[in-house]
Amino acid sequence: MLPFARVSVIGLGLIGSSIVRAVRDTMPTVHLSGHDADPAVRARVATLGLVDDLADSAGAAVTDADLVILCVPPGAIGAVAREIAADVPDDAVVSDVGSSKAAVLADLLAALPGRHIVPAHPVAGTEHSGPDAGFATLFKGRWCILTPPPGADPIAVERVTEFWRRLGSDIEIMDAAHHDRVLAITSHLPHLIAYTIVGTASDMEEVTRSEVIKFSAGGFRDFTRIAASDPTMWRDVFLSNRDAVLEMLQRFTEDLTMLQRAIRWGDGDQLFDLFTRTRAVRRSILEEGQDDPAPDFGRRH
Amino acid sequence: MLPFARVSVIGLGLIGSSIVRAVRDTMPTVHLSGHDADPAVRARVATLGLVDDLADSAGAAVTDADLVILCVPPGAIGAVAREIAADVPDDAVVSDVGSSKAAVLADLLAALPGRHIVPAHPVAGTEHSGPDAGFATLFKGRWCILTPPPGADPIAVERVTEFWRRLGSDIEIMDAAHHDRVLAITSHLPHLIAYTIVGTASDMEEVTRSEVIKFSAGGFRDFTRIAASDPTMWRDVFLSNRDAVLEMLQRFTEDLTMLQRAIRWGDGDQLFDLFTRTRAVRRSILEEGQDDPAPDFGRRH
Repeated sequence: MLPFARVSVIGLGLIGSSIVRAVRDTMPTVHLSGHDADPAVRARVATLGLVDDLADSAGAAVTDADLVILCVPPGAIGAVAREIAADVPDDAVVSDVGSSKAAVLADLLAALPGRHIVPAHPVAGTEHSGPDAGFATLFKGRWCILTPPPGADPIAVERVTEFWRRLGSDIEIMDAAHHDRVLAITSHLPHLIAYTIVGTASDMEEVTRSEVIKFSAGGFRDFTRIAASDPTMWRDVFLSNRDAVLEMLQRFTEDLTMLQRAIRWGDGDQLFDLFTRTRAVRRSILEEGQDDPAPDFGRRH
Repeated sequence: MLPFARVSVIGLGLIGSSIVRAVRDTMPTVHLSGHDADPAVRARVATLGLVDDLADSAGAAVTDADLVILCVPPGAIGAVAREIAADVPDDAVVSDVGSSKAAVLADLLAALPGRHIVPAHPVAGTEHSGPDAGFATLFKGRWCILTPPPGADPIAVERVTEFWRRLGSDIEIMDAAHHDRVLAITSHLPHLIAYTIVGTASDMEEVTRSEVIKFSAGGFRDFTRIAASDPTMWRDVFLSNRDAVLEMLQRFTEDLTMLQRAIRWGDGDQLFDLFTRTRAVRRSILEEGQDDPAPDFGRRH
């Protein structure tokens, strides 16, 4: 039996449009409704025929849903939740896909008191944005973290679990605060650092922009991919997960300062020891199937 | 006409073994000799049949060469150059493939006075090491930077240029000091930061190693690839390009501190502006063919 019969997705960018595509593939009898605040995105979704009912408002899109998934940037969750509050059926489950969870959960609980709220974070994505960037297999073999509030209805949690399993994901359940600390180190800090170094390189006076681009294969180009991620979403992630990001950043800065000192004083052993240790982390990631084992991510040469 | 008839490669890891494979493919009449200080590597190179003459010492490998390429870590260049000094023919050209150039050039000039020295840096590689990791197309469509000393014989420079063109590379000539500043920002600092964050993540107490691995698809896994690069080589790069690396690191830290402050004070506009600007850098890299345009580097999903 399907976990949900009528799914409504609000926000049809990379993640939202991938969800509706994946539902079509894996649960073809599910009725899909959707809405996006951007008329250009709505027009594109209509052309692509991604949903059964494309509504002109978020409220209209959720009226008959038994699962509502908000696929909007973390900073917009509160406003969208308030917008749909009067229209969400009482027994519907409301979820989201945000990359930070404690602030988002608080916004959902405040806007939708007494409703079934089961936030989710599929740890998947690309550097592209918009409805054309989505694809049905985006969540396959990837982790999806659920962060239900204390006291959440176990049946609602189980239904959302089953929904993401059918999209191909493995499920982990944890509390929102722990999620935010785990993702601060595995996702948010890496993005912050990538954005920073790409900015630093762009601002060089004596090394030209053209040289930075030309010789980016030395490592820099990897960072530019992450630093091409959606600016609105990432602004919201850093602002909504402020405390955990600042703490991880502090740890990173301490470690970087230690390496800086090792370089200044010519302490090769300290560098070599760390570089050997980090190599083992890569091996673990490949052993657990969390990355493409081909050299250079399988890039075409 | 071929630029060189007898090429000797000292050091047969990822880069050295890729060079001999590429020479075989593109200039099959060239005689290839080679040596590696590691007997296990020599045995593997013999099994793979990568060179015509596999010598037991670096000196024996260069006796009849008209091009000698040292493919050893920057910190080993001086010692290897001294080792071959008595055996390099007077009219041979000596080159290398090191990622830092001013210190390497100084070591070569000191060890081989009066010889034709044309250092090179092919900006290409993968995170893998050793003779099995090499492949003939590694340098195709990639930049190779030559840093001849002032007063270098133009004919020697032209022959090395032609050699790398035949391996598929585009050539840029610049002085060693400028090279070291360009690569400090496009390659050395990115590696230092990747090594650092992978270390920081490994050292977390409350976020387990298992969680870091599991949820690495959020961005972290990209850094683990770079942080899996050869520890000896990268130790030597940081020590031999100390001043430029420290300066770029200082610039990076200033920029990171500014973002840290923006996050702390909730200045979303500053974050959004940077994140929009960095997206454009990615576009330039793709426009100039310096990365795979497929989403997520073309990783298999």
